[in-house]
Amino acid sequence: MNFVIIGGDAAGMSAASRAKRSMPDMKVTVLEKTEDVSYSACGMPYNIADENRELDDLVVRKAEVFREKQGINLLTGHLVESIDTNGRSVVGKIQGSGETFQYAYDKLLIATGGRPKIPELPGFDLPGVLALKSLEDGRKIKAYIQVHPVKKVVIIGMGYIGMEMAEALRERQIAVEMVKPGPDLLPWMARDLAGVVEKELKDNDVQLHPGCEVSRIEKSGDKLEVLCKDRSLDADLVLVAVGIKPNSELAVDAGIDTSVGKAIAVNKTMQTSDPSVYAAGDCADAFHVVTGERVWIPLALRANRAGWAVADNVCGKKTKLQGIAGTAVFKVFNLQVARTGLSLEEARRFGFTAEAVSIKSSSRAHNHPGARPVWVQLVGEKKTGRMLGAQMVGSESAAHRINAAVVALHSHMTVADFIQTDLAYAPPFGPVWDPLLTAANQLQKRMQ
Amino acid sequence: MNFVIIGGDAAGMSAASRAKRSMPDMKVTVLEKTEDVSYSACGMPYNIADENRELDDLVVRKAEVFREKQGINLLTGHLVESIDTNGRSVVGKIQGSGETFQYAYDKLLIATGGRPKIPELPGFDLPGVLALKSLEDGRKIKAYIQVHPVKKVVIIGMGYIGMEMAEALRERQIAVEMVKPGPDLLPWMARDLAGVVEKELKDNDVQLHPGCEVSRIEKSGDKLEVLCKDRSLDADLVLVAVGIKPNSELAVDAGIDTSVGKAIAVNKTMQTSDPSVYAAGDCADAFHVVTGERVWIPLALRANRAGWAVADNVCGKKTKLQGIAGTAVFKVFNLQVARTGLSLEEARRFGFTAEAVSIKSSSRAHNHPGARPVWVQLVGEKKTGRMLGAQMVGSESAAHRINAAVVALHSHMTVADFIQTDLAYAPPFGPVWDPLLTAANQLQKRMQ
Repeated sequence: MNFVIIGGDAAGMSAASRAKRSMPDMKVTVLEKTEDVSYSACGMPYNIADENRELDDLVVRKAEVFREKQGINLLTGHLVESIDTNGRSVVGKIQGSGETFQYAYDKLLIATGGRPKIPELPGFDLPGVLALKSLEDGRKIKAYIQVHPVKKVVIIGMGYIGMEMAEALRERQIAVEMVKPGPDLLPWMARDLAGVVEKELKDNDVQLHPGCEVSRIEKSGDKLEVLCKDRSLDADLVLVAVGIKPNSELAVDAGIDTSVGKAIAVNKTMQTSDPSVYAAGDCADAFHVVTGERVWIPLALRANRAGWAVADNVCGKKTKLQGIAGTAVFKVFNLQVARTGLSLEEARRFGFTAEAVSIKSSSRAHNHPGARPVWVQLVGEKKTGRMLGAQMVGSESAAHRINAAVVALHSHMTVADFIQTDLAYAPPFGPVWDPLLTAANQLQKRMQ
Repeated sequence: MNFVIIGGDAAGMSAASRAKRSMPDMKVTVLEKTEDVSYSACGMPYNIADENRELDDLVVRKAEVFREKQGINLLTGHLVESIDTNGRSVVGKIQGSGETFQYAYDKLLIATGGRPKIPELPGFDLPGVLALKSLEDGRKIKAYIQVHPVKKVVIIGMGYIGMEMAEALRERQIAVEMVKPGPDLLPWMARDLAGVVEKELKDNDVQLHPGCEVSRIEKSGDKLEVLCKDRSLDADLVLVAVGIKPNSELAVDAGIDTSVGKAIAVNKTMQTSDPSVYAAGDCADAFHVVTGERVWIPLALRANRAGWAVADNVCGKKTKLQGIAGTAVFKVFNLQVARTGLSLEEARRFGFTAEAVSIKSSSRAHNHPGARPVWVQLVGEKKTGRMLGAQMVGSESAAHRINAAVVALHSHMTVADFIQTDLAYAPPFGPVWDPLLTAANQLQKRMQ
């Protein structure tokens, strides 16, 4: 069997490795347009923070290992230009030489990932206006900082990549200003929790300009100028971090269905609307375990897991993925910010009669040295009592505590049942009633 | 209604407060034999570690608050000596004066807690041979160290209280040796994980003497001598930490049933074999959510939760507790040690066709600065695929990661379903595949 994979990052290489392990005789070909495969994209901000580290430190497994030890036909610099679903083949061009190639497949995996959204506005193509998604993007940012005297960066966007980069740049003593068009920092977050994040950014000298829609970027001497309606911000480098979009054009052109956010629609076995074609990773959608609806939340664990599921299904071992809970966690300076499931607003938008509580608790027993505040928001459905989502912010423990709520969401647990869980307690690690339990106790009262 | 509570610590005062909040007209009387109520016993080792802190810092709420603000008839120094279940009254003596008292009840809660097991061997009553359970025990240990030149302590027992005390004493530059009769440190733990704990103790200059059964303690000049079969250890203070037993004698004398370990048997509403009498806290048993069987695992969260449940049931609001997962967590120097559910041996003893894997993973992404090893053991049932238990050891994140497994046990989740959970990922907080997921992936393979 010919198993062809377009894209050699998390989803693509996970699928290739697992398929080759399951069925060593299978011909597995990976067509990757860049020279980079299998790297930890999420580690880039922390790598950029340290001028002594190479971006290549983030490579999880080298191309030679895939080729020589695993027997995968890994072809880098191979840009696929179209898929012929009737003839079951892909054609494309080798970067540099321009030579064309064609590969026939029995099963195809589209794992083309995503790319940063770049506003179609004047100046976003100027040198020094950069985005962060691929390893090559990371190299460009790091090289730019090395070559130019970068004293100040303006980050367009205040999502988690923007925040992680703000921390990385402050680590390197670079001034940071952030702009976004909307009025609210992290609009999906409970306002009191978002306030804690905002304070952390300000305490670390990050200047925030919400409600500031960028209209264009101009070059002004050695500097760049980011122009909004009522202000202009000068910068040595501008980072565009307003989100990503799925690389689904190849699939669309081949007549394959897409869904939310133009992500490629897949069923629970990762099959697209063409049964011989699978999709996985940042280019594909998923089912949400709380709503049961299709969502597009491109994150690393799902990409790896989906890659494995594709391999299993291609190898004849029926594997269904239940879906995602929309769990995300990030670090902003000394804060851990975590979420899973639905926010109160999302829950109401999906038709749930949702209630929520926000509480402030403690990372350790209240009288224990080093105890730090932990904020929790918990969302539940009044009618069924079911837990719908959780958010946490705190300088310790929030990133791992959230996982108890994640498992509860996968189990469709009620808040009343969650209250009964025998969560771990010892004074150095939390109050007797875990912050999540305190929130659940209060939410239960409100829902009655 | 007259609601009488014997014992004024976690379970007793939780029940008293909640009953009074629910039904302000109810007469709530708490009979506590000591002068201490409502304190964090689990915080004692950390308090003892710091010579500048008073034990009273661990009092959660003062007696006056219960009496004056909450209207609870809280009587300290009141030792109950017997319960008349036919006449529905308790009688006892006031400490000091010796005056007798009698209180009639409509509903009674026995929340008498537990006390340290003290071997009935010569010398265990010598001055300087101390145990740790009540606040008064803590005061005695602290006072002894203050008054005597304590350079070395022998701890009899290697359970978690022994280990927490070892850390506390090393913090105060006191040499520590630990003895126990059995050959294995933490016998319930996977051997590779227990080895990590053993190394941590040794790295912190705690001398371990397993396989060493103490036959007696003798006074020898200014020192104590702990005598085993083949060796004797000198000490300035001996700490006895070989476990606790339930204070269930009052209940037994009143004809109330007990179960495992002579703990008072309660149903899911916390009722004893006498429907007017409830029991909660360290003196009462519980159902285990994995086995469905009665167990006696006295821990703080259960005590608080059971106290609340008693109050609800006494106030006519039917509340059932599902049970406990046997979750426990403790700190040993720089290690976090956590467990929930059954160990492999326990699972087999309960008749499960159990399998287990142990893995070593990382607390952060493998290439992330500061990543530390995390060890996980996961136990599952071959026949049903169900998850049965988890253990974790590591210098960061283990104490909070375990909670994902706790919720899975409460949900009777299979390992296959757990593998699908959307646990949080970001490089500062874990590998893409959470250590629990990596363990689950491997366990699933072994169970197939």
